[in-house]
Amino acid sequence: MLAATVALTLLMPMPRLATPADGKLPITGDFTVAATGVSDERMQAAMDRLVSRISRQTGIWILAPKAADPARATLRIECAAAGSEYPKLGEDESYTLDVTPQSAIVKAATVDGAMHGMATFEQLINAGPDGFSAAAIHIDDRPRFPWRGLMMDSSRHWMPVDVVKRNLEAMAAVKLNVFHWHLSDDQGFRVESKLYPKLQQSGSDGLFYTQEQIREVVNYARDRGIRVVPEFDIPGHTTAWLVGYPEIATTPGPYEIGRHFGIFDPVMDPTKEATYAFLEGFLGEMTHLFPDQYFHIGGDEVNGKEWTQSAAVKAFEKAHNLANNDALQAYFNQRVLKILQANGKTMIGWDEILHPDLPKASVIQSWRGAKGLAEATSKGYQGILSWGYYLDHLRPAAYHYGIDPLAGESADQASRVLGGEACMWAELVSAETVDSRIWPRAAAIAERFWSPAEVKDVDSMYDRMSAVSRQLEWTGVQHHADYAPMLDRMAGEQPAPALRVLADASEALGLGPRRGGRYTTLMPLNRFVDAARPESESVRALESAARRMSPDDVTALRRQFTLWAANDAQFQSIAGQNALLAELKPLSKDLSELGTIGLKALDYRASGQGTPADWLATQQAEIVRIQKPNAEVILAAFRPVKILLDSLKR
Amino acid sequence: MLAATVALTLLMPMPRLATPADGKLPITGDFTVAATGVSDERMQAAMDRLVSRISRQTGIWILAPKAADPARATLRIECAAAGSEYPKLGEDESYTLDVTPQSAIVKAATVDGAMHGMATFEQLINAGPDGFSAAAIHIDDRPRFPWRGLMMDSSRHWMPVDVVKRNLEAMAAVKLNVFHWHLSDDQGFRVESKLYPKLQQSGSDGLFYTQEQIREVVNYARDRGIRVVPEFDIPGHTTAWLVGYPEIATTPGPYEIGRHFGIFDPVMDPTKEATYAFLEGFLGEMTHLFPDQYFHIGGDEVNGKEWTQSAAVKAFEKAHNLANNDALQAYFNQRVLKILQANGKTMIGWDEILHPDLPKASVIQSWRGAKGLAEATSKGYQGILSWGYYLDHLRPAAYHYGIDPLAGESADQASRVLGGEACMWAELVSAETVDSRIWPRAAAIAERFWSPAEVKDVDSMYDRMSAVSRQLEWTGVQHHADYAPMLDRMAGEQPAPALRVLADASEALGLGPRRGGRYTTLMPLNRFVDAARPESESVRALESAARRMSPDDVTALRRQFTLWAANDAQFQSIAGQNALLAELKPLSKDLSELGTIGLKALDYRASGQGTPADWLATQQAEIVRIQKPNAEVILAAFRPVKILLDSLKR
Repeated sequence: MLAATVALTLLMPMPRLATPADGKLPITGDFTVAATGVSDERMQAAMDRLVSRISRQTGIWILAPKAADPARATLRIECAAAGSEYPKLGEDESYTLDVTPQSAIVKAATVDGAMHGMATFEQLINAGPDGFSAAAIHIDDRPRFPWRGLMMDSSRHWMPVDVVKRNLEAMAAVKLNVFHWHLSDDQGFRVESKLYPKLQQSGSDGLFYTQEQIREVVNYARDRGIRVVPEFDIPGHTTAWLVGYPEIATTPGPYEIGRHFGIFDPVMDPTKEATYAFLEGFLGEMTHLFPDQYFHIGGDEVNGKEWTQSAAVKAFEKAHNLANNDALQAYFNQRVLKILQANGKTMIGWDEILHPDLPKASVIQSWRGAKGLAEATSKGYQGILSWGYYLDHLRPAAYHYGIDPLAGESADQASRVLGGEACMWAELVSAETVDSRIWPRAAAIAERFWSPAEVKDVDSMYDRMSAVSRQLEWTGVQHHADYAPMLDRMAGEQPAPALRVLADASEALGLGPRRGGRYTTLMPLNRFVDAARPESESVRALESAARRMSPDDVTALRRQFTLWAANDAQFQSIAGQNALLAELKPLSKDLSELGTIGLKALDYRASGQGTPADWLATQQAEIVRIQKPNAEVILAAFRPVKILLDSLKR
Repeated sequence: MLAATVALTLLMPMPRLATPADGKLPITGDFTVAATGVSDERMQAAMDRLVSRISRQTGIWILAPKAADPARATLRIECAAAGSEYPKLGEDESYTLDVTPQSAIVKAATVDGAMHGMATFEQLINAGPDGFSAAAIHIDDRPRFPWRGLMMDSSRHWMPVDVVKRNLEAMAAVKLNVFHWHLSDDQGFRVESKLYPKLQQSGSDGLFYTQEQIREVVNYARDRGIRVVPEFDIPGHTTAWLVGYPEIATTPGPYEIGRHFGIFDPVMDPTKEATYAFLEGFLGEMTHLFPDQYFHIGGDEVNGKEWTQSAAVKAFEKAHNLANNDALQAYFNQRVLKILQANGKTMIGWDEILHPDLPKASVIQSWRGAKGLAEATSKGYQGILSWGYYLDHLRPAAYHYGIDPLAGESADQASRVLGGEACMWAELVSAETVDSRIWPRAAAIAERFWSPAEVKDVDSMYDRMSAVSRQLEWTGVQHHADYAPMLDRMAGEQPAPALRVLADASEALGLGPRRGGRYTTLMPLNRFVDAARPESESVRALESAARRMSPDDVTALRRQFTLWAANDAQFQSIAGQNALLAELKPLSKDLSELGTIGLKALDYRASGQGTPADWLATQQAEIVRIQKPNAEVILAAFRPVKILLDSLKR
């Protein structure tokens, strides 16, 4: 690789235009930054964060970072306008960044654009032959989509404020600009209402955000150029609301906070005026708490069972010419829309709110398929794609990366696609595990939303995601940091390298295959599957090695196969006395078998002679067996071994 | 090991009396806690922290932790009295803890004792055959010494409030009860003074604690049973004070904040009344800020050079019959003592304040040797031992563990030894590296201060320190967590397992051998030596294996030697383009050589025949060469190889 292009291996999302140049700008303790043009509070705070981040990512103490004379600053930021008080959809987020061996300059129309430029500058900084430096480059950048979101579910498992904050910090680092906050569901109502305090008192197990905390998060996000779009999911997914306020439910209750997952029957009653009076008060309160223009009402997965069983509801449908429950929900949505409009808001909802009676001013968030988005945009609605970006399914980054929000949209429709959102549903994640389920894969999705559609080379994406994943550690997210402590805990706080080897070779299953009715919110998420990563970086490297098979690759494979082959003996010696490890015994045995198969395959390959067909058939059958889920993980280690077997001469 | 004694492998400091019993108390999501007797704010906060910690260390969400009926609580705390508003020297810290398969009970005379009992209970919780549980046990415990401290130097490198807080949390977990806060030195004055604001304005590079932050830390410590003893080091080590207030210096200045380390010439002028007027104001302000009875005036390392060169000082000495500079400092100390006494405080200082004229009400902290402590106690002063507990020297835990505060004290003198303090001087540690320089070694020192003198088996200490080190991660200290990111940073944020192997095999040198005049406060502490641990846990395990040589040990050694032997080729491939790695090339080569020697030694041993004398002599010479420091680390890996070579038959 040319030295000048090394810089590009550090950037995610990839800029629209990036032209590496020769040389690099040294980063030392004498680093300074200054802003010209706009230099308001947000800009000052952004510069403070930049300096603090550079200090963390280099380990260099910067003594006096603010340059008195902007012309002599290491990094100068020229910002034309402050932008909105709170970031808005469609804000000008463009910037240019020029790094030379002497200095760096970010130019932007708004503080939001300037912050993106600073984030790019930080990514360029890396260790090299002469210490830390930022490679010389010219960048001209702007986003492909204006709506680039991450949805976090704080209901099914509680996410404390510091978890939210560190994820906002990481979002800013990869230029995501919408934090969609799923704040209520059957398993918990998570915001303090002063008008309806039983919402949080009865519906949250004491785990909710105070209004002060909400404001704190909203301002924290604003300072990082991120909009906060709240979601209160109605009329279904509302069990936790109904514990305190059964009078707005279809059936009288009493209700209890949901502990299981799935689609629940409890639902608001759209036929009672009391329901709308309640929502008028509640939504009035919440629309004042969240300054963003958009307000999400959920609207998904209403099974209509209680409506169908209620004579009163059926009579109401008949009296109002509502053909079915979908029509009833559409009626409900129109009433809600009026309340939101009276409060100056634009309504968003999931696919299910799409209905012939839904006014065009609403926005559709598609989760059930690209077809849903196409249907909405073809009918003239604006839309956001989330299908294909469900992080809780724990699919490889490449899968999400391969899905384009505009696939299947005509040019006319495409103009109505605002962007996309990665979704982190929280059935099977806790405050401890959520970071490793979001990062680094959300960085690849962020690139899909920001970079030109033509940026789609998967190998390049993985290389850059690996670097950015480590840079993200300096934002405070714990996706790497939580791994070892979780494994140590399982091993009784004693060194257990064999458990680490097994975990590195494994990949956790996502919501679908894990659900099976077995889990509740009360079950600990402290098992091997919770510690294991969605995607094994080290196994991916071995797959590449098994494809290339250079002499170094062969050495690396032999080393790893040897380690795996010997690992089970060590593992079994610690697994006996421990409930959390016992379920892994067959998995560990399989890993050692993979090691043994791999070593033998390397021997056959080295011999230059053919491989016995019966041996090959037996091993391939073993691979078919081993690649099946076990203890809710996949032994990813099968992949390099399979590649190797498939490449052997018969 | 008997199942019943497993519990003892988890405890540090070891209780005075611990009798394991059969069975264990399951820890589940239904865990509850309640207090009877005293149940004040501190107790409630302590119970909240206990529950939160148990949740973290088990990964179990505890739904409703406060038991309505104390008799039915999983853990009941019976506390007789609240104790002082702020913890005091000599507080009754005793407790008993009884764990049965049905429940656990802590009994204590004060909230401080109760918190120690809770800390012990937390340590008992571990993963086992049926999930998490606390082993059944009877414990009757109290400290050997009432003064068990950790000194942190916030001057030479700045330690933000959150670094202080997380270390206080960890201190509480191992029952340390004094936080000695070194708040000023030549390199920085770190507390806001409202009376003398130029202290922080001119002397801190903007890095200081506001008075509000000081109060926050003092209360945070109090809530954890920890006293905060502030140190303002006078009359030497005061360059940073003199930048703003040159009028109290011996020479007119101007002064600049110190950037180097060592003994500086600048010193306060004990002959001017202005100096005492200043100190009267300043100490009056600070004694109100820190509620503890004790107040530390430093007093160390005054070289007297400027006094000797000053005609005015010499004239003053003559006029006041002060025989020399030591006598002048004693005069100064007496004046300071009067100010402190007027403010109701007891004065402490380092060895150097000991002087025939020093009133007996003062306390001596010995850092220059056990002899200093013996001298003080023989003369009737109370004393604290810090010699032998200097964490910045990065010596093995066993070294500190082997030093007893009462060694060399008569019974009469022993009664005046209040305890000891581990000292974390900050010449070569930053906020990022300080945790790994304190923990886990300070836990072994905490045991020396708390447990009976007879608790001194080094192997047992290391086994327990290993478990407690991992448990400490749940307090928030970063001694494990910072390791991988620092290595990743050096490797350009790319996977570099070869660097990890090298780091695991290395041990960082401490202040003495590293100092050499080369370092300043401005130099980054981001090198390999800063990431490497003071003591390698994995090498220690290999040393034990090389001594035992069971078949499993031989397998483990062969595996590790093979890894080392192959590691250099991988390492050199990443080291070329990186300034931070380049200095490690010879070290990496040596590690591979050690691997090769170790493998060959295992072969000779397995052959059952003698080892050629010339081969052995050559290798032992190599070991002598390799064990010398390189890139400011020791290749600890030499130790198991040396043990193996020494065991070979000729």
